[in-house]
Amino acid sequence: MKQVEELPMANTKLRSPALDPRTIEMHVGTTYPSPHDGICKNRKKARLGDALGLNNFGVNYVCLPSGTASSQRHWHTKQDEFIYIIEGELVLVTDIGEQVLGAGMVAGFPAGQPDGHHLINRTDCDAIYLEVGDRTAGDGGEYSDIDMRAVRHNDGINFVHKDGTPYDTKDEK
Amino acid sequence: MKQVEELPMANTKLRSPALDPRTIEMHVGTTYPSPHDGICKNRKKARLGDALGLNNFGVNYVCLPSGTASSQRHWHTKQDEFIYIIEGELVLVTDIGEQVLGAGMVAGFPAGQPDGHHLINRTDCDAIYLEVGDRTAGDGGEYSDIDMRAVRHNDGINFVHKDGTPYDTKDEK
Repeated sequence: MKQVEELPMANTKLRSPALDPRTIEMHVGTTYPSPHDGICKNRKKARLGDALGLNNFGVNYVCLPSGTASSQRHWHTKQDEFIYIIEGELVLVTDIGEQVLGAGMVAGFPAGQPDGHHLINRTDCDAIYLEVGDRTAGDGGEYSDIDMRAVRHNDGINFVHKDGTPYDTKDEK
Repeated sequence: MKQVEELPMANTKLRSPALDPRTIEMHVGTTYPSPHDGICKNRKKARLGDALGLNNFGVNYVCLPSGTASSQRHWHTKQDEFIYIIEGELVLVTDIGEQVLGAGMVAGFPAGQPDGHHLINRTDCDAIYLEVGDRTAGDGGEYSDIDMRAVRHNDGINFVHKDGTPYDTKDEK
């Protein structure tokens, strides 16, 4: 299996508006309700766009450990998504099937195209990628393989069943 | 001087929504009027976002040969910008001075902050980076070091002097 090279120490000397992504705190896990959270519970994201003061779009530096997925397979109604593979190897799943993406490869997911996607790390090494998404208002998320839908509110995202009933996280967690 | 590794052959087997950036046609040069075009005339850009069908933001895969700059030093009034260095080494120039950015480093330029930026390749090797910018309406560009301003119209960009008079490209080219 292909080994990912050991990264050198993070560069802590860069000053705004530049930075080394490895100096930004990573958030671990997902807000998905049970039982859909398992594949993302080890996912790590650093919010680079926020750290750089960007408002119009988000940029995350994402680390997927072995066996972890980027998300449940989904598509967005209003927002575009872009990913760039920095390191390691990820399997991209969409309606056409599976493709292996190595470092330097990209993918794009235009808003409103009902072809769900996610990335799965099936290697023994961490995989690292950048994800970019805009912040167009009124966006929703549709999940291709599970009974879930994301509904956006001013204060965040609610996950509901496809018929609109909420996930009762008290019962299910 | 640090040498950039030879890239393997481009991966032409990936299918939409994935691709290898090296399979996308690169556009060479700039639409800057003379005498401001010289530093960018060898700049090469592949429009990844367009190739992937994205509309809400643009993503370019940019190659700066030795001695080339990303742009004249500028800032945007409405649109955010983000860059990720893929390969090589670039000097980022902003109001705080110069910083050397190697592979894996990022920078972000929030809309409306009057601190112009550009990237200069002072090495003997090509440098490659990703640039992302949203498409918020009504954007303009202000140039920090030269008598120029970018005014956006429905059909593109006009470059004018700071007092609003147009560049007469017939006379100057």
